[in-house]
Amino acid sequence: MRPSGRAPDQMRPITIEPNFTRHAEGAVLIGFGDTKVLVTASVEEKVPPFLRGKGEGWVTAEYGMLPRATHTRGSREAAKGKQSGRTQEIQRLIGRSLRIVTDLKLLGERQITLDCDVIQADGGTRTAAISGAWVALRLAVNKLMADGKLAQDPIRQKVAAVSCGIYEGTPVLDLDYPEDSSCHADGNFVLLENGHIAEVQATAEGATYDEEELLRLLRLARIGCTDIFAAQARAIA
Amino acid sequence: MRPSGRAPDQMRPITIEPNFTRHAEGAVLIGFGDTKVLVTASVEEKVPPFLRGKGEGWVTAEYGMLPRATHTRGSREAAKGKQSGRTQEIQRLIGRSLRIVTDLKLLGERQITLDCDVIQADGGTRTAAISGAWVALRLAVNKLMADGKLAQDPIRQKVAAVSCGIYEGTPVLDLDYPEDSSCHADGNFVLLENGHIAEVQATAEGATYDEEELLRLLRLARIGCTDIFAAQARAIA
Amino acid sequence: MRPSGRAPDQMRPITIEPNFTRHAEGAVLIGFGDTKVLVTASVEEKVPPFLRGKGEGWVTAEYGMLPRATHTRGSREAAKGKQSGRTQEIQRLIGRSLRIVTDLKLLGERQITLDCDVIQADGGTRTAAISGAWVALRLAVNKLMADGKLAQDPIRQKVAAVSCGIYEGTPVLDLDYPEDSSCHADGNFVLLENGHIAEVQATAEGATYDEEELLRLLRLARIGCTDIFAAQARAIA
Amino acid sequence: MRPSGRAPDQMRPITIEPNFTRHAEGAVLIGFGDTKVLVTASVEEKVPPFLRGKGEGWVTAEYGMLPRATHTRGSREAAKGKQSGRTQEIQRLIGRSLRIVTDLKLLGERQITLDCDVIQADGGTRTAAISGAWVALRLAVNKLMADGKLAQDPIRQKVAAVSCGIYEGTPVLDLDYPEDSSCHADGNFVLLENGHIAEVQATAEGATYDEEELLRLLRLARIGCTDIFAAQARAIA
Amino acid sequence: MRPSGRAPDQMRPITIEPNFTRHAEGAVLIGFGDTKVLVTASVEEKVPPFLRGKGEGWVTAEYGMLPRATHTRGSREAAKGKQSGRTQEIQRLIGRSLRIVTDLKLLGERQITLDCDVIQADGGTRTAAISGAWVALRLAVNKLMADGKLAQDPIRQKVAAVSCGIYEGTPVLDLDYPEDSSCHADGNFVLLENGHIAEVQATAEGATYDEEELLRLLRLARIGCTDIFAAQARAIA
Amino acid sequence: MRPSGRAPDQMRPITIEPNFTRHAEGAVLIGFGDTKVLVTASVEEKVPPFLRGKGEGWVTAEYGMLPRATHTRGSREAAKGKQSGRTQEIQRLIGRSLRIVTDLKLLGERQITLDCDVIQADGGTRTAAISGAWVALRLAVNKLMADGKLAQDPIRQKVAAVSCGIYEGTPVLDLDYPEDSSCHADGNFVLLENGHIAEVQATAEGATYDEEELLRLLRLARIGCTDIFAAQARAIA
Repeated sequence: MRPSGRAPDQMRPITIEPNFTRHAEGAVLIGFGDTKVLVTASVEEKVPPFLRGKGEGWVTAEYGMLPRATHTRGSREAAKGKQSGRTQEIQRLIGRSLRIVTDLKLLGERQITLDCDVIQADGGTRTAAISGAWVALRLAVNKLMADGKLAQDPIRQKVAAVSCGIYEGTPVLDLDYPEDSSCHADGNFVLLENGHIAEVQATAEGATYDEEELLRLLRLARIGCTDIFAAQARAIA
Repeated sequence: MRPSGRAPDQMRPITIEPNFTRHAEGAVLIGFGDTKVLVTASVEEKVPPFLRGKGEGWVTAEYGMLPRATHTRGSREAAKGKQSGRTQEIQRLIGRSLRIVTDLKLLGERQITLDCDVIQADGGTRTAAISGAWVALRLAVNKLMADGKLAQDPIRQKVAAVSCGIYEGTPVLDLDYPEDSSCHADGNFVLLENGHIAEVQATAEGATYDEEELLRLLRLARIGCTDIFAAQARAIA
Repeated sequence: MRPSGRAPDQMRPITIEPNFTRHAEGAVLIGFGDTKVLVTASVEEKVPPFLRGKGEGWVTAEYGMLPRATHTRGSREAAKGKQSGRTQEIQRLIGRSLRIVTDLKLLGERQITLDCDVIQADGGTRTAAISGAWVALRLAVNKLMADGKLAQDPIRQKVAAVSCGIYEGTPVLDLDYPEDSSCHADGNFVLLENGHIAEVQATAEGATYDEEELLRLLRLARIGCTDIFAAQARAIA
Repeated sequence: MRPSGRAPDQMRPITIEPNFTRHAEGAVLIGFGDTKVLVTASVEEKVPPFLRGKGEGWVTAEYGMLPRATHTRGSREAAKGKQSGRTQEIQRLIGRSLRIVTDLKLLGERQITLDCDVIQADGGTRTAAISGAWVALRLAVNKLMADGKLAQDPIRQKVAAVSCGIYEGTPVLDLDYPEDSSCHADGNFVLLENGHIAEVQATAEGATYDEEELLRLLRLARIGCTDIFAAQARAIA
Repeated sequence: MRPSGRAPDQMRPITIEPNFTRHAEGAVLIGFGDTKVLVTASVEEKVPPFLRGKGEGWVTAEYGMLPRATHTRGSREAAKGKQSGRTQEIQRLIGRSLRIVTDLKLLGERQITLDCDVIQADGGTRTAAISGAWVALRLAVNKLMADGKLAQDPIRQKVAAVSCGIYEGTPVLDLDYPEDSSCHADGNFVLLENGHIAEVQATAEGATYDEEELLRLLRLARIGCTDIFAAQARAIA
Repeated sequence: MRPSGRAPDQMRPITIEPNFTRHAEGAVLIGFGDTKVLVTASVEEKVPPFLRGKGEGWVTAEYGMLPRATHTRGSREAAKGKQSGRTQEIQRLIGRSLRIVTDLKLLGERQITLDCDVIQADGGTRTAAISGAWVALRLAVNKLMADGKLAQDPIRQKVAAVSCGIYEGTPVLDLDYPEDSSCHADGNFVLLENGHIAEVQATAEGATYDEEELLRLLRLARIGCTDIFAAQARAIA
């Protein structure tokens, strides 16, 4: 039934390649099938103005898509002179999702920026970005601890994200582009390894949905995130 | 328990003043307690480029907050030269929420823009904006029908929105500013009168939440939206 | 002769509603007929860089028009990414007009920002803004004095403004939109209660004017400002 | 009494050098003493969108100041990415002043742009710009007529401008920078050769002024403009 | 002598991975040692306005660097709202270099955009970009020919680029970052396979250079480009 | 053979008018034939952030072209809200060229900004700008030394620049606009009086060039710069 032939509760292959580039404190190329996102974690020993002198750190994210990551070329945001509403919405979501698993007091007065750049897009770029960002953050924090800059681990939990939607009447896990562009409802779920929820964004597209469908999407998301948590564990092993 | 003394499932007073200004095809001042949003619906007999010649209409929204709608003055977005990520996120949400209840083919090749300007803010500006925008849209469509420009009503349903959150451990309905700024989880729910869901955006702030809490927030939202649908009905009567 | 049936030297009804919103130190909704402007005065305990450490305060203004304040929807300046020349010209005029009646040394090292947002436009928005801004400033200064932050009143005078023009050959007071868009000459007069002039901006539109006409416009402005000063006095009573 | 030793009603030397550059249809370097403005008139055989197909032309102006035209270097507007409110206010004034003496129907569907760039500033740059712009416009229209593109002269009148102000209690003509920066009131007067007024902008700076002072400034402006009209006539002879 | 231990006339390993991403008509990941640039070629069946209706095509380039491609994080140009002068200079150079080997008339009314995004930087990003862009262009043109959209090959020649500089007194080939940041003169050479020169940009940094040194740099560039031409040939084989 | 009738190795008349404007510490109007560039040198007793506290100075440049410096009017960069890539490329080149002849340590913690504004363009504006900027810099440094602010001269050498190109098969010196717009290769050469090279930028336009042609262009540039050095010497005498 699905264009890819996957079962409704089947993720695409998850690939996580740590240390894909060498300058960043943490770097990972994450793939959910043909969706490929390069995430780097950059540590800076300063915090944004609103946090100065408060003894707390900050975790933030920026998101971008290479102009030809998509089927047809999109214009370059740097050339247009501004980031789209979609870009800003996504990078705010990524930042929130990583902050919720980080103890900012334990991090100390430093900032970690997660740059998520989509190299190739096939649906689910924001959820792949969040899932990869956790690995990049983990690698960067490991380095801070190995360098003796952090005594205690500020990361409390694993976090992962996946999109689910109702495609031709059936709730399915991990939408790819053909599904994403024609599904009736589309949810992004950000979950913690302990089962808690960090964020649900479930949007009707074309048709609204009911409470039962919301719960079925959430259950699919739990299945997918279990796979992602395992892949994250392998990547940092 | 709540700073305002309200019961957990109690909305603030909902006020809807139709025709608050005179030039727009639809105009309403909506209040959720001290949150006041002026919404106008402007009809233009043209559609955005991507829809030209397709025989379909468009409904879109813009959102703004007067600099001193808030406790301390915020800078004016027009003076800064760009809309914040928050503003763009909100106006995209408003637009989606109104499009989901509109049959764009029945609307014909015209655009209705919902301008939502926050005159005074006390939490829940985006949900008040959505709830008021439906009334403004309804008034504008009524005018198109009265003028003979539309034979069939393109509005399928009422739509309303409300925020709920977990405040000091208790799920509460219709967060005001003191609650909004200290709650542990914060959800915006956009619901249809038939009980269907248009959008759920539930975000952990400080602490994550579980599935049971998500459902309790959703149930509170249903209670609140029932009140809003009634207020909308009175406003257009 | 006038579209509204008013006598040449007749103002539209002046309405001033103090405390229209609650967060600002001063807030007023002023109406010149169907022109409605919300003005808030925000006090900040800091001054712009060029005044730091000089023991003087600053009074400044910002002006905006809601997109559908007008007959047809105008584009939102925040979305376009810049304020028009007209907007900047008007907010500079408002700022100058209020500074001329304020003793900036007595104000001390603080800034008062007057945000003038046009809710509904029917000609004369800048003159209504100036006239309302004085009331908002007065309310904010009263609050500073009541709070013991100011020992001496820095406001020296009332200031008001009105537009006059030559409409179908006749000088008329307080142009509304139909008059404004077809008059031959159009002047904005900013006057003090003691009869002095703060600013004259008299522009030929379509036809030039002579000295006698300039003086007749000025005399009409005096008549109008007398009414406005009285309305200001009632508002702060 | 005046820093320059001039009599109160004495203009600075007016110099007008036509054809200062060679590409423009009209070009002039105008000097009011040490204030030097290069004005070019560029003819384009198209009109702005709002005039297309109406059989009318347009006259518009742009204004700029070289970064080191002034005593201390100002930042370059092109580098800052926007024109200041002052710049926009001035270029709108110049455009209006030239349009009021042009019969736009006779001009036909073409646009003339007056670029006014201040090479050296010593007060009165906007009034020198208007006065020089008339000569550049005259030269460009002469060329259109010589080329057979215009049968009838669309320029109705000469227009000139000068600033006057109250300096140390005395009304004086043609303020230079030392006067401009310390005068109590400052007016820009745009006058036609037939004595009519195109624009008065008289602003209190530090102290307000009365009707008698306004009239004395206007009379000084008439004296100054007589000199400018003569210089304009010599320049195009 | 060189930090990397290379001989003065020795290139870093050149790696070219064609089809690195799948949506673009041509895509390649090129590496000059640790410098890695992803280049995609996007074909659009339209030309920029200045070429419309002239029967000619266009080849253009855009360049970007991921924020953490470098040793310390640079700010994201999309977030800053503009491309730096350096970025614009580089993308203009890439575009010129590819146009010079393309017969734009044979290309027909279509545009090929070469997006060059630096994934990891270690000196020589612009020269790697040009060298990789040729392969991406070749792949895209091959596809156009295979699809029957082009009868004749519009690519006339191979083009490649390499940087050379005077490092501690010795002319060396293919500067890496440690060399680039401390060399006395730095040249970028864009060469054709037939030995002709497309562009020389040789800049003194710290110390000027003489004609003999310029020629020695050019000779080194010829050596390096021979290697690059061979790698390009292997990549498209 | 050349449109102007000049010999292949013949410069246009070089005119340098020092002190063309009066506020800047150094100011010059330089002409290469009909190309006229006003260059001012502004001294500020501060350095950019990256140099603060290092005991070194900075020399930088900005470049602009008046809208009607050219045959047809170009749009004003300040009005468009950004500087073109060409503008930024040129001002970076001018800055580098002047820094290479300045001992920044001797200059001390101050910045000299060279504003190069093209009053009239006929090819070679960037090379005229560099050549004139040296004179403006010289005048400003002379003033600093005369004022006792500098004990030792930080300017090491004269620097000049000229463009050469291959026009109808013949290498020619100092391209004017008709040559520039149709030549096959176009080089900008920045040379020191001692014969050393500061910068070569030689670009194929339409056709590539070989090493022999590059050398012939460089030799022509040496001839031209000899003339410019002489003109610079006369200007500061």
